[in-house]
Amino acid sequence: MTAMDSEKARAANWFRQLRDEITRAFEQLEDSHEMGPLSDFAPGRFDMEKTQRSSGDGSDAGGGEMCVLRNGRVFEKVGVNVSVVYGTLGETARRAVASRGVPGMDAGLEFWASGISLVAHMQNPHVPAVHMNTRMFWTPGTWWFGGGCDLNPSIEYEDDTRHFHATIKAHLDGHGDDQYPRLKKWADEYFHIPHRNRARGVGGIFMDDQNTGDWEADFALTRDIGKCLLPAYVPLVKRRRTMDWSESDKEKQLVYRGLYAEYNLVYDRGTKFGLASGHDANAVLMSLPPIAKWI
Amino acid sequence: MTAMDSEKARAANWFRQLRDEITRAFEQLEDSHEMGPLSDFAPGRFDMEKTQRSSGDGSDAGGGEMCVLRNGRVFEKVGVNVSVVYGTLGETARRAVASRGVPGMDAGLEFWASGISLVAHMQNPHVPAVHMNTRMFWTPGTWWFGGGCDLNPSIEYEDDTRHFHATIKAHLDGHGDDQYPRLKKWADEYFHIPHRNRARGVGGIFMDDQNTGDWEADFALTRDIGKCLLPAYVPLVKRRRTMDWSESDKEKQLVYRGLYAEYNLVYDRGTKFGLASGHDANAVLMSLPPIAKWI
Repeated sequence: MTAMDSEKARAANWFRQLRDEITRAFEQLEDSHEMGPLSDFAPGRFDMEKTQRSSGDGSDAGGGEMCVLRNGRVFEKVGVNVSVVYGTLGETARRAVASRGVPGMDAGLEFWASGISLVAHMQNPHVPAVHMNTRMFWTPGTWWFGGGCDLNPSIEYEDDTRHFHATIKAHLDGHGDDQYPRLKKWADEYFHIPHRNRARGVGGIFMDDQNTGDWEADFALTRDIGKCLLPAYVPLVKRRRTMDWSESDKEKQLVYRGLYAEYNLVYDRGTKFGLASGHDANAVLMSLPPIAKWI
Repeated sequence: MTAMDSEKARAANWFRQLRDEITRAFEQLEDSHEMGPLSDFAPGRFDMEKTQRSSGDGSDAGGGEMCVLRNGRVFEKVGVNVSVVYGTLGETARRAVASRGVPGMDAGLEFWASGISLVAHMQNPHVPAVHMNTRMFWTPGTWWFGGGCDLNPSIEYEDDTRHFHATIKAHLDGHGDDQYPRLKKWADEYFHIPHRNRARGVGGIFMDDQNTGDWEADFALTRDIGKCLLPAYVPLVKRRRTMDWSESDKEKQLVYRGLYAEYNLVYDRGTKFGLASGHDANAVLMSLPPIAKWI
């Protein structure tokens, strides 16, 4: 395996481009919300903060940019992180990867990883929460892509679920008819909460350890996972953001967010890897809801 | 190792007795709160619910009783669980125990465990949250006790911390002068949040895998860990519950609770064991705050 410097740069740049496109579109959603609940608030804006990974030994370990929009008219809290981290895998992180049986992981502990990660928690409980992330991982013996997105409504609308899945499918079908079913099935398994014996939300797609040997094809697939977020999600926001909600709707949303936090803290691979590899905890846990309840 | 039926019964009974004593004392705190914030609320009362562990194969796996008091004048949410569970250790639970290097764990996968677990989240942000649990664990090759308690203020008062630690020390000194320092040090290590590089609260005591070979002595030590909760904690509640609080005090408490939830979901051994061994998720996660924030 070469150092793949040009591939790494292309992937990292693309994650940043996607971040710019999404944050722009989300701020437009804030601007265009001129009627309905909370439209008298000021339109929300993203704040950007640099984040650092700590290597433990003082060497450069990379970092990222955390963009968060809080207390908007439409978004209660949405975070979009990008990062480029590198160094030597610690024991916990190495074991987490090795336990998945990724071949080539014994060629060395050096690593490089870059990705984008997004979670949106909404003001209006009729608007579903959403999650998306895509990433590239490199070690001296191998590389792979991972990523996915899933829809997390606290009040379910069949129409929304159908639109979300249809849009994703349309983006993936160009990579072969088997991709959407394969990645949907993986999401059904991955976004499952064993201790509650239920799905986290209404599904989506997920993949990890994606390496067909054809880096260009795998990168293209990864890009399409990222690209489908806006067309799959923005129409749902527009459709639901003007609906009135009751106190019990909001309560339902807060309790659902408790469940969401449980999933992320107990099972989510990105969270585990982030905490175990010393990345800025605020960036890793950006996905946690602004406020949540447990009954 | 024998089946230790009489020891098991004594331990399980004692945990239930302690539960009764604590719930009675906490309801008295609700009754006696007649002046100050929220004293116009009705005094809170515990609700009891039976909980079941699922063995996965339909065999009897034990269960427990979950007592929760919600929306009181003093307690916002306090849960006191007792349980007696048994059966065969699943792979995840077995690995969790084996990774601690407990000797005798290879004599068989049969297990029996009983314990009490308490977490109190308070209305008044000046009153610290508190946690206590003690437990006995048995397998064909060994047995041990575990337990601890720690204080979790969102607004710190040195006086409170001093009283809490001094009361615990007084209870443990009868078991040897080295016990309090040993268990305090263990708590400092155990109730530490690596990804935030900070202590969860202001400490307390913790022990696990306690087996000196003298079951009576270890049981007596365990009982004293449980017994110190009321004298260590009740005076702090009485001292702080009449204080007025501001919105920013409450905000601070909610953000602190987010941190508390992080700890419990990512690191807490009891939570990990409970979720991995199929106990009722609501009972295992009773420790989670009624409402929490992440900034």
